[in-house]
Amino acid sequence: MSPKITTELLKKLRQVMKSPKYVEEPVQAYIVPSGDAHQSEYIAPCDCRRAFISGFDGSAGTAIVTEQHAAMWTDGRYFLQAAHQMDNNWTLMKMGLKDTPTQEDWLVSVLPEGSKVGVDPFIIPADQWKRMSKALRSSGHDLVPVKENLIDTIWTDCPQRPCKPLITLDLSYTGVSWRDKIIALRSKMAERKVLWFVVTALDEVAWLFNLRGSDVEYNPVFFAYAVIGMNTIRLFIDGDRMMDPAVREHLQLDSIVEPEFKIQVMPYGSILAELQAVGAGLSPKEKVWLSDKASYALTEAIPKAYRYLTPYTPICIAKAVKNTSETEGMRRAHIKDAVALCELFNWLEKEVPKGTVTEIIAADKAEEFRSQQKDFVELSFATISSTGPNGAIIHYKPVPETNRTLSVNEIYLLDSGAQYKDGTTDVTRTMHFGTPSAYEKECFTYVLKGHIAVSAAIFPNGTKGHLLDSFARSALWDCGLDYLHGTGHGVGSFLNVHEGPCGISYKTFADEPLEAGMIVSDEPGYYEDGSFGIRIENVVLVIPAETKYNFKNRGSLTFEPLTLVPIQTKMIDVNLLTQKECNWVNDYHQKCREVIGAELERQGRHEALQWLIRETEPLIRVQ
Amino acid sequence: MSPKITTELLKKLRQVMKSPKYVEEPVQAYIVPSGDAHQSEYIAPCDCRRAFISGFDGSAGTAIVTEQHAAMWTDGRYFLQAAHQMDNNWTLMKMGLKDTPTQEDWLVSVLPEGSKVGVDPFIIPADQWKRMSKALRSSGHDLVPVKENLIDTIWTDCPQRPCKPLITLDLSYTGVSWRDKIIALRSKMAERKVLWFVVTALDEVAWLFNLRGSDVEYNPVFFAYAVIGMNTIRLFIDGDRMMDPAVREHLQLDSIVEPEFKIQVMPYGSILAELQAVGAGLSPKEKVWLSDKASYALTEAIPKAYRYLTPYTPICIAKAVKNTSETEGMRRAHIKDAVALCELFNWLEKEVPKGTVTEIIAADKAEEFRSQQKDFVELSFATISSTGPNGAIIHYKPVPETNRTLSVNEIYLLDSGAQYKDGTTDVTRTMHFGTPSAYEKECFTYVLKGHIAVSAAIFPNGTKGHLLDSFARSALWDCGLDYLHGTGHGVGSFLNVHEGPCGISYKTFADEPLEAGMIVSDEPGYYEDGSFGIRIENVVLVIPAETKYNFKNRGSLTFEPLTLVPIQTKMIDVNLLTQKECNWVNDYHQKCREVIGAELERQGRHEALQWLIRETEPLIRVQ
Repeated sequence: MSPKITTELLKKLRQVMKSPKYVEEPVQAYIVPSGDAHQSEYIAPCDCRRAFISGFDGSAGTAIVTEQHAAMWTDGRYFLQAAHQMDNNWTLMKMGLKDTPTQEDWLVSVLPEGSKVGVDPFIIPADQWKRMSKALRSSGHDLVPVKENLIDTIWTDCPQRPCKPLITLDLSYTGVSWRDKIIALRSKMAERKVLWFVVTALDEVAWLFNLRGSDVEYNPVFFAYAVIGMNTIRLFIDGDRMMDPAVREHLQLDSIVEPEFKIQVMPYGSILAELQAVGAGLSPKEKVWLSDKASYALTEAIPKAYRYLTPYTPICIAKAVKNTSETEGMRRAHIKDAVALCELFNWLEKEVPKGTVTEIIAADKAEEFRSQQKDFVELSFATISSTGPNGAIIHYKPVPETNRTLSVNEIYLLDSGAQYKDGTTDVTRTMHFGTPSAYEKECFTYVLKGHIAVSAAIFPNGTKGHLLDSFARSALWDCGLDYLHGTGHGVGSFLNVHEGPCGISYKTFADEPLEAGMIVSDEPGYYEDGSFGIRIENVVLVIPAETKYNFKNRGSLTFEPLTLVPIQTKMIDVNLLTQKECNWVNDYHQKCREVIGAELERQGRHEALQWLIRETEPLIRVQ
Repeated sequence: MSPKITTELLKKLRQVMKSPKYVEEPVQAYIVPSGDAHQSEYIAPCDCRRAFISGFDGSAGTAIVTEQHAAMWTDGRYFLQAAHQMDNNWTLMKMGLKDTPTQEDWLVSVLPEGSKVGVDPFIIPADQWKRMSKALRSSGHDLVPVKENLIDTIWTDCPQRPCKPLITLDLSYTGVSWRDKIIALRSKMAERKVLWFVVTALDEVAWLFNLRGSDVEYNPVFFAYAVIGMNTIRLFIDGDRMMDPAVREHLQLDSIVEPEFKIQVMPYGSILAELQAVGAGLSPKEKVWLSDKASYALTEAIPKAYRYLTPYTPICIAKAVKNTSETEGMRRAHIKDAVALCELFNWLEKEVPKGTVTEIIAADKAEEFRSQQKDFVELSFATISSTGPNGAIIHYKPVPETNRTLSVNEIYLLDSGAQYKDGTTDVTRTMHFGTPSAYEKECFTYVLKGHIAVSAAIFPNGTKGHLLDSFARSALWDCGLDYLHGTGHGVGSFLNVHEGPCGISYKTFADEPLEAGMIVSDEPGYYEDGSFGIRIENVVLVIPAETKYNFKNRGSLTFEPLTLVPIQTKMIDVNLLTQKECNWVNDYHQKCREVIGAELERQGRHEALQWLIRETEPLIRVQ
């Protein structure tokens, strides 16, 4: 990896920072955040502005360019990568280290008095703007919105914004029509006494209209906004994709419908002007509901007194609770995914000893097996295929420079998933194709105990996921071990593989209580730098639990694994398991054998079926 | 309980709310919060203004009086009590219920346009002022500080502010001199670049100067403030108690000392003027450090640009980590406390079957046995002595109207503690003096499993207490049970029985990470309304743990029980315990027998010793 030479680019950027053509007044600093206008986790190539100006293309980072300096803030996952990808024009600001200044403190330390700091108001979330603006103002500077994105003005070969065809999802997939979703949303709006709701997150637009796209890799979403009134629906979307007869019919664009369900299609770029018009027309006590993560530009379009901001939108919360059609779809998707992985692991078991399988080949093979399954659309994230020391890099993705050959001497970790039209998968298995050491087995077994502790946990209705995080760590903690990531995240239904508002993490974040129908991952791990990585991940569905008693009639919940892929028994030190844990593994494997076995049989995949049967032999615990 | 008749009082209050003698402009509403000027949990009789005006004397509640209305906000613990104690002039606002308005919303709904809402700026914490003021302003009203407390103007027989003698603590108790505490504080101030630190919490003043008082029941504190500069120490305190030669010598008031350790003693009431003088004399970049819970009056004395506010002060954090002298003192205090409880339980075992022991008699007897111990000062909180259904009332305190007789047919719960000159105790034991039912034993055993899960937990250095809360609930959750309070709180060293900044609770609060030397309680429970209450509480010390491995060299922690009082084995269903839990109970009882047995022997308390030996017989688990 050689660094990107940015001297000329920075020179150009500094010119436009002073050019009256682009800025009302010169700005002494310009902030280039990571995100897009929808605060997406995964972004399209045209939105990779920070990577363009700096060369650093990790998933998280903020660049700030002043007349004299260029600095990049990123976190521990990316210190090495950023240092390799950026040239000497850049200073790396290592977030999380004690001596690293915050962006605000650094700006205050380098800027001349009374400076203006520019940022694209469409990219910066309103809550970040507020914090940054306050800090700068208290030191005599100003944060100013720069309407035209200054990176775009110098990015001559910037790719087009994607505008790919849409997929319509019928009731058999979604369980609820977009019309009924609008009705439910309007009832939430009425409860909170708001007249308008602005949909800014791409997965929320997709979910609301039962549409999917492919504008962003791995996430089946499309660039759009929506503004829902009590009697109006406005969808802001570009391209001839709205000419597709299937889409027109799905949205009833050419039908006679009640006025309150008539969708007005408008250009993507007209959202700001339309929202400003809404804002200008409000009477006292009329409110507009936005996510507090919406962009500063859209938030400012509504006068402050009329804004109703919440961390989670009613769509985000409704989307998280899957209905029967969605959970059935997720079940089907996970069965197909398990078939593909049984094929893969059977193949790996034969091929790895030959010494010809690299991490990239294994990842490609996994994709090949998945793509043979019905309704396969694409992967749900970049496959983490890692062996030996690469397994300890939590967000590893094999590239030719790091590509390692799988062997019978090293642990192999595969974290992968796919988008099927009926559901999204995300599964991690850790395997050994030779003989694992006692220490590797010991660590694997602690991780497994943590996985089981979460999966089998029973907890009251209304419990927040973060209260379960320590269950996943307890066995590791007992031996002085731990892992430095959360235990689980929400999973979309043929949508983003990471979604809010629930999760299982030690980090205190405003998670919503778990309820039946929510779907999260359960993925504890253990990582030894330079040696190996272990992670065991299932996607699990929150279901009601039967309990002996029922305190205050609250009811209880537990999890049902949707992922049904054998956990390699060779890696388990069975004497470290309690009888209860041993039974959990055996019951789980029995279910894998029954459900996936039947599907392998149906698909005529006899060799993989034999593998499954071998891998699901019951554990026997010596007392 | 008959309600207090408040018609005349409210009339008088409404008069002074309009009287130019007391208010610059008439106020249309007056807020009477619970607290004192130091945001204390326990308050002196002269500060019980809300109880005086309303009759309601629970520990939490806020009264608001307008020209037409009088309303009281309190939480679920006090709905019944408040309803009984208040007359028809008052509306009870049940906090936590869906339809109960917030104080702000209610004020907005009842006030005429452009109203002024008054409050004593010394009583309201700055963060509450900010929230309330913002909400009122956005509806066209104003929150205004009323310098003279309006309740005090009509409270003709208001008790004097207590001004009791001080106790000096020498190095053998405190481990660190007040001089060294000042040095450490100044070094924290230098780190944060602040020039002044304002000590507002009573326990922080007491801890800093190694002094104790008895101005407030149960909490060995005294009314005082302190302002620490880099070269000055100002102590604001009233009364002739500063004439005490022991105090004068302890504080070196008459000695020749370096100027930076010279304590200037000033009147308690002069704090505001002195702080305003400090505020007026600041140059740019000079900061004053205050708790964000300090009163609005003191916070406002420092211009906003010069304030440095934190949720926990460096004194609060330093105070929480006990040094060797303090932990040794806490150990001694807990040994004495255990001796008293062995005596009590032995006595109860003989007396309860006679049917002559009431909850109040049992509580008094507990105090009697404690008061026989060396360096006993007072109780550390009002004893919760409750039998049968009273045990299910979590904050129960027996009074003649509720006083129940202990019997061989009901569970008895005793939550009690004391202040000794060497430490503070807080212990709960749940006993049966007859034959408990299988169901009672089952519930007790789940609570015990939770107690052990926390007490025996091993966790990494830097872990926050709230991450351990679910361990205490897991066994209850498995059966659909739970308890509706946190699992533990910080405990002071001959100081407040509840102290920050750490604790063990499901409630997300900004707790500081646990570290070796911190002391918290471990007190899960189970309560069945109308039937019984179970709680098992030990005070535990955070200590380093030995582990097999040591991930990232972080080190591990665990707990050592300081409380050494037998847990009634009669209440345990031993078949519900794992072998590990069974061993924990046996090891714990072995330690009780050794340590407390030796002290009972030394004190010649032979009958209690025999009781202890009987009660600490090892459990045997049938496989």
